[in-house]
Amino acid sequence: MSAAVNPLASRPVPVRRWSGGGASAADDVVVTEEPLEIRIRREDERDFSTVAITMRTPGHDEELALGFLYGEGILADAADLAGARAYSVAANVVQVVVRAGLRLADLTGERRFYTTSSCGLCGRSSLEAVARALRGRRVQGEARVAAALLASLPGRLRTEQRVFAATGGLHGCALFDYEGRLLGSREDVGRHNAVDKLVGRALFDGTLPWTDRVLMLSGRAGFELVQKAAMAGCSVVAAVGAPSSLAVELAIETGMTLAGFVSPARLNAYSGSERLVF
Amino acid sequence: MSAAVNPLASRPVPVRRWSGGGASAADDVVVTEEPLEIRIRREDERDFSTVAITMRTPGHDEELALGFLYGEGILADAADLAGARAYSVAANVVQVVVRAGLRLADLTGERRFYTTSSCGLCGRSSLEAVARALRGRRVQGEARVAAALLASLPGRLRTEQRVFAATGGLHGCALFDYEGRLLGSREDVGRHNAVDKLVGRALFDGTLPWTDRVLMLSGRAGFELVQKAAMAGCSVVAAVGAPSSLAVELAIETGMTLAGFVSPARLNAYSGSERLVF
Repeated sequence: MSAAVNPLASRPVPVRRWSGGGASAADDVVVTEEPLEIRIRREDERDFSTVAITMRTPGHDEELALGFLYGEGILADAADLAGARAYSVAANVVQVVVRAGLRLADLTGERRFYTTSSCGLCGRSSLEAVARALRGRRVQGEARVAAALLASLPGRLRTEQRVFAATGGLHGCALFDYEGRLLGSREDVGRHNAVDKLVGRALFDGTLPWTDRVLMLSGRAGFELVQKAAMAGCSVVAAVGAPSSLAVELAIETGMTLAGFVSPARLNAYSGSERLVF
Repeated sequence: MSAAVNPLASRPVPVRRWSGGGASAADDVVVTEEPLEIRIRREDERDFSTVAITMRTPGHDEELALGFLYGEGILADAADLAGARAYSVAANVVQVVVRAGLRLADLTGERRFYTTSSCGLCGRSSLEAVARALRGRRVQGEARVAAALLASLPGRLRTEQRVFAATGGLHGCALFDYEGRLLGSREDVGRHNAVDKLVGRALFDGTLPWTDRVLMLSGRAGFELVQKAAMAGCSVVAAVGAPSSLAVELAIETGMTLAGFVSPARLNAYSGSERLVF
């Protein structure tokens, strides 16, 4: 059960690295984020049912599948598996075979609506559904914004995070224009909820799409946040934390500028660095 | 669009606060986490359909619902809403009425399987389903563990987080016994996946339940992580970050010891402090 280094868990990406004085090409390493489909069947059944598709870091996929099924109350112990070869792992799919007679109704028989505090894709039946919603959409905006201005935004966001100040438990996001004017901010226990609230407000106000706007995030930039920003047509997403591999790919695909590890002293541009003035 | 302080966003909880020298009763404030159900109907339909239940911080619920529907590609702009009174907000439910003819099939017609990197409850059709899986379960373990030992675990976990060291983008978790022996660790872009992997390994190894074990988390302790730990029968959960209100409630209900803001110098015990030696 040791934590051997997993070569699939991260991958190198080229970045423009800015550190106050100027910018240069560099290589960064981002965590791998890919979908895993978990399928289950009883040994007395013929077909597998999909019970979950989760965005995960590849590695230990069979443990992930069994741990997930245990957490759902489906597997009580290893004896519920159908023998020693009860699971098979292929590219991004784990198939689990359980003993005849195990009750699976809760897992596969009910409609599933649950999304949680950190989840922006729940309820999608496939990655293809996400791509369909984006419909080849590209974000717009020819104007440029100073990297130094982005670097000042984490501090501005922090002053807006009033509940975080009290609890240490919230994610925040804020929208700025390229002169650094604050246009709105929201906080939530779920990072995707905070972005949804900001988008919902903009929908009320008729201020979408977010062309020539910066969406500042208090945490990491995962796929689902970049997807929500892309739907909102946001030109620039800046995050205090790290992006995932899939977030970088989506930002490139939609023509968005994605900056990570944004702090007063530095930032990395993972895509769209032509919008930044270094 | 200013960020007025939201009285619903946090709530006070009593804690035992340890800071090296000793422990004392104190009050802490935790972020509120509650489920919100989003329902939708077209104005030419009679019944609402539930499209999502999300764990969120109360406040700006109508914005959350509309932003969510926009991100799903259902609403293109405010004109898709059925007039000025198109939504209603009740306790933890938002109902949205959209114009006749709007295409809703993608949202309500397909089975939903998606769970994401931060999501441990996706696929559950209700909070009741979560409670059902727990079936009144209580974690066991009469032994006690030193608060000072818990305080040393974040550093131990960090040395295990090899991919985080390279990318800054992963959540980690590790299992320890009360003498501080490392029993296993896992990393993932999704915090719930890391826990699932650790549980799955333990299922293979026949080492469940986790009585007299400490599950150390690199981030915050939300409801879904405490739920997974409770299913695994884990006596103690320790987190580097803050817990949510619902996580604290579930820890109390299942008899688990939950420590937050764990660092070399201090920690807060939100439940089960009788298992800690201060």
